[in-house]
Amino acid sequence: MKIGIVQTHPVFGDIDRNLKKITDLISSQSADLYVLPELCTTGYQFKDRKEALALAESIPEGPSTKKILELAQDTQAFLIAGLAERNGEKVYNSAITVGPDGFIGCYRKAHLFGAEKNCFSPGDTPFPVFDLGSTRVGVMICFDWRFPESMRSLALDGADIVAHPSNLVLPDCPQSMITRCLENGVFAITADRVGAEERIPGQTMKFIGQSQIVDPYGKVLARASQDKEEIIIVEIDPQKARNKAINSNNNLFEDRRVDLYRRG
Amino acid sequence: MKIGIVQTHPVFGDIDRNLKKITDLISSQSADLYVLPELCTTGYQFKDRKEALALAESIPEGPSTKKILELAQDTQAFLIAGLAERNGEKVYNSAITVGPDGFIGCYRKAHLFGAEKNCFSPGDTPFPVFDLGSTRVGVMICFDWRFPESMRSLALDGADIVAHPSNLVLPDCPQSMITRCLENGVFAITADRVGAEERIPGQTMKFIGQSQIVDPYGKVLARASQDKEEIIIVEIDPQKARNKAINSNNNLFEDRRVDLYRRG
Repeated sequence: MKIGIVQTHPVFGDIDRNLKKITDLISSQSADLYVLPELCTTGYQFKDRKEALALAESIPEGPSTKKILELAQDTQAFLIAGLAERNGEKVYNSAITVGPDGFIGCYRKAHLFGAEKNCFSPGDTPFPVFDLGSTRVGVMICFDWRFPESMRSLALDGADIVAHPSNLVLPDCPQSMITRCLENGVFAITADRVGAEERIPGQTMKFIGQSQIVDPYGKVLARASQDKEEIIIVEIDPQKARNKAINSNNNLFEDRRVDLYRRG
Repeated sequence: MKIGIVQTHPVFGDIDRNLKKITDLISSQSADLYVLPELCTTGYQFKDRKEALALAESIPEGPSTKKILELAQDTQAFLIAGLAERNGEKVYNSAITVGPDGFIGCYRKAHLFGAEKNCFSPGDTPFPVFDLGSTRVGVMICFDWRFPESMRSLALDGADIVAHPSNLVLPDCPQSMITRCLENGVFAITADRVGAEERIPGQTMKFIGQSQIVDPYGKVLARASQDKEEIIIVEIDPQKARNKAINSNNNLFEDRRVDLYRRG
């Protein structure tokens, strides 16, 4: 199975341009599954909820989802992409999962970061795991990584691969995703963006790139640059994530001591 | 508050020699809290449960605990040390916490690694947090790190510092403890050993050293060598671990979405 990270540099508010760029990047490649960044069609730094509402779209009815569905059909690939989702008067920081046969599902970011809390409503969907036939893919978005329960929930629900659309500004995530894979025995695909936004004077958001793919043993299979748009495709065997044994005596899931853990 | 990691090279089975070495190392120093390695008096690689039973001692009645209690009194310091604990016909891979005023508590390792399962019984104590007056210290042992719920349980129960006696053979722990601190906002003191044991022919256990102290923001305050006995002492303000805010909008504990996490 070939999986790809698509690292882009969205232009804020120019949805058509950003979708065309994604289409151009992916159309020249061949993979079974692509992960795109968080908010990859709109850009990141909304000034307020009103502005987010104006750029957000319904899912799956909106034009961005339709365009990404077309791309999935044209390329016969699964795509996971971060979008601003409008639902009535609410806006969510969401990610859609689509495939050659149509729309599969939507996840709304559970842990909002920084000023996102001024623009988005917190997610109300469970961390989802989608059965894509040859593999099961879980979805979380960016800052969800900081809370180990996010990826743990996905792994316990059977994810082989965790797709992780991101707009990273803090430096810690790429390294910490190695720990997330080591503790859960899954693949992780973090698709980050590059570039900077300063739509609120004095509040520059500089994105760190470094999109990456990590295997269930904590090996970094690919890591992108800090500043360039790029696609990296890696061939993996997702079935490797189903074996949670780390030696003949230890198993990441069977060894868990739920009897001793604090729920909190 | 001054906290110390004590990185030693125990001689298998020579409890008197190992205790003397610990005493010599600590007596020349001045700190408020020292963390010693896992199984620091006996060595690590027991051939079987019978051998472990022969070297294990009651806690707190046994001579090793008594000696460590004396050391705590002499130095007016708190000590956390890994010991093989005998309880009837059972042996646990345990860690004692003692202070100038006496015995405080014992933790029995929850997640046994590799062939430890042939020698020890799995822990039946919750992950403990001890109030030492100026700070609250949680205890976990070595392989417990691999399961995020271990340190999460300690942090949720109020630990400012996680003491982590270890005998590390895999390379991943030092880096992953940075993630553990980032996700929980606590200090971590991993006290590892150095040297190698090959008491079972063909099964060499090479210990990686690299004992370390990490702060609640993921900064490595100290990291020891891979191969030398040493003490490193660092001054910290444990109160910093009580503030779980990471910016004006995010808090490591308040942002948790327990409503969405899978218990598993």
